[in-house]
Amino acid sequence: MKIIVDSMGSDKGPKEIVQGVVDGVNELGVDAIIVGRENIISKELSKYNYPKDSIEIINAEESINNEDEPVLAIRRKKNSSMVLALEALASGQGDGLVSTGSTGALLAGGLFIVKRIEGVERPALATVYPTKKGISFILDVGANVDSKPEYLLQFATMGSIYGEKVLGTKSPTIALANIGVEEGKGNALTKDAYKLLSNSDLNFVGNVEVRDIPEGVVDIIVCDGFVGNVILKLTEGMAMSMFSTLKEEFTSSFKSKIGALMLKSQLKSFKDRLDYREYGGAPLLGLRKPVVKAHGSSDAFAIKNALRQVKTFSDNNVINIIEENIKDQLIKVNRF
Amino acid sequence: MKIIVDSMGSDKGPKEIVQGVVDGVNELGVDAIIVGRENIISKELSKYNYPKDSIEIINAEESINNEDEPVLAIRRKKNSSMVLALEALASGQGDGLVSTGSTGALLAGGLFIVKRIEGVERPALATVYPTKKGISFILDVGANVDSKPEYLLQFATMGSIYGEKVLGTKSPTIALANIGVEEGKGNALTKDAYKLLSNSDLNFVGNVEVRDIPEGVVDIIVCDGFVGNVILKLTEGMAMSMFSTLKEEFTSSFKSKIGALMLKSQLKSFKDRLDYREYGGAPLLGLRKPVVKAHGSSDAFAIKNALRQVKTFSDNNVINIIEENIKDQLIKVNRF
Repeated sequence: MKIIVDSMGSDKGPKEIVQGVVDGVNELGVDAIIVGRENIISKELSKYNYPKDSIEIINAEESINNEDEPVLAIRRKKNSSMVLALEALASGQGDGLVSTGSTGALLAGGLFIVKRIEGVERPALATVYPTKKGISFILDVGANVDSKPEYLLQFATMGSIYGEKVLGTKSPTIALANIGVEEGKGNALTKDAYKLLSNSDLNFVGNVEVRDIPEGVVDIIVCDGFVGNVILKLTEGMAMSMFSTLKEEFTSSFKSKIGALMLKSQLKSFKDRLDYREYGGAPLLGLRKPVVKAHGSSDAFAIKNALRQVKTFSDNNVINIIEENIKDQLIKVNRF
Repeated sequence: MKIIVDSMGSDKGPKEIVQGVVDGVNELGVDAIIVGRENIISKELSKYNYPKDSIEIINAEESINNEDEPVLAIRRKKNSSMVLALEALASGQGDGLVSTGSTGALLAGGLFIVKRIEGVERPALATVYPTKKGISFILDVGANVDSKPEYLLQFATMGSIYGEKVLGTKSPTIALANIGVEEGKGNALTKDAYKLLSNSDLNFVGNVEVRDIPEGVVDIIVCDGFVGNVILKLTEGMAMSMFSTLKEEFTSSFKSKIGALMLKSQLKSFKDRLDYREYGGAPLLGLRKPVVKAHGSSDAFAIKNALRQVKTFSDNNVINIIEENIKDQLIKVNRF
């Protein structure tokens, strides 16, 4: 098992990424290829102990950043760490890829270079969503901002397989993110997707009202990429805003400061529930190889968890299972 | 000034509504018509002091509830409090309407009975959104779940006028709810709406990232009704979920219980910022008369505030100003 890591485009620079890769190699028993500026990576690697032949470097001088137009960047920046990493993956030099770089570019590059699984209309970006009860898994969160009902059926299929094989949820429940619970609620897209999902062999339990998502009432949540991104970003925004408000309130008087001190561990435990670092990164589902987008501000711990995620993704044969299921689904639809 | 109040369909029953109307009549100097079961309303009214000729009753035996299909309910339940209230409004017996009943039915009834302002393509449901800095005003939050770019331009126009005249914000800033700040971000709808808004005479400041909405960075937020409803409901869900989590954490040990007691007033002040009752109800913009949807669980205080809102809505001639602005906008577009 060899995992390719695109080391450029992270907010924290290569230091945390290299440390995360070393920890991953030592703890998970995987090999790795780090793509980025060779001199910097070598220097960082020299600080650590690890089996020397288990980490290779592919030198890349160019990086793709968030300001680049994704499709143009993938086409033009041929020597960027992301393009070289994706090409190494596509050519079979590694079994999966982790990148902290631009999400848009990774989506475009995944599509052009790694390519779709046969039968998959659109790959989806998926992510773990921390809830009160544990986690939900939500897709699409931004790859397809104008989705069709058929895409949502495929997202559900891929999400269900990933949930079972990688997240370890037995026959996960699947719901459609909607603005009402009853069938017939929502917009044209959700109404049509509801019908497709109801007629599928999936463990579809109906609509989940967006209001109930933070409570954790369902395992897999399916939605259009625009709506999924809204759900994800608003959740982050609400959490940040509420924490800063709480902080202000709690430091507004001497008494409240003491009160806040007494609650310190509770506040920390509350904040930990919302910690995305625990869950690795966001997988791109529907590509021919495992690709995981790690958070731009990932530290070594988050990078190591992303490596673990790619390993489980690959070990469990998720891509072959997706391919078979999508094929079966298409055969079934054509029959009707 | 006479305000019609549909007293059926509230979660709390007519008691709170009648008390809210009496308080409104006494404090705001308005007259009112309460539509609902006459015997119950008379009995409730007999408990209070108010100028006797300032409150009338229209008897209604039937009610529309949230389980009714909105359009069918408006067409068939001719003796429902909502239909009778809307007809009284349309025929000029009152200057505005407050209802706690089914949002869907009120939207349908508003459209069929009160009717659109000339030139308005789709009326929008709008609501005040409490932020860290104060309030934003967001529309559409559910009336049009499949919007066109032209609708969003009209929502912005109506929202801007309401913000200035009723909420008292001088030349309010307007932004498009989106999943990125830059022009060209988002889905087909937001990309096209961005162009229309940029070319308008409105105080359009660009996209607002959904993540930043809770911070309160803009006065008027425009979006498709599905997305607006998602934003509203997820905000409520996050707030509820975070409060219940905090409560659990804070009562998990003796020390934390004492800490929480010391923070009681801070926690309350935090919760108050999210209190929708302060802001009255959600106006339907684009109809020929002021119509305000009050929350289903409105108490007397919320009902009184909804009456105040209808009064300001009517006093400030919002509907005529919307009509003129929409007309000007249509003339301008036809010229090009």
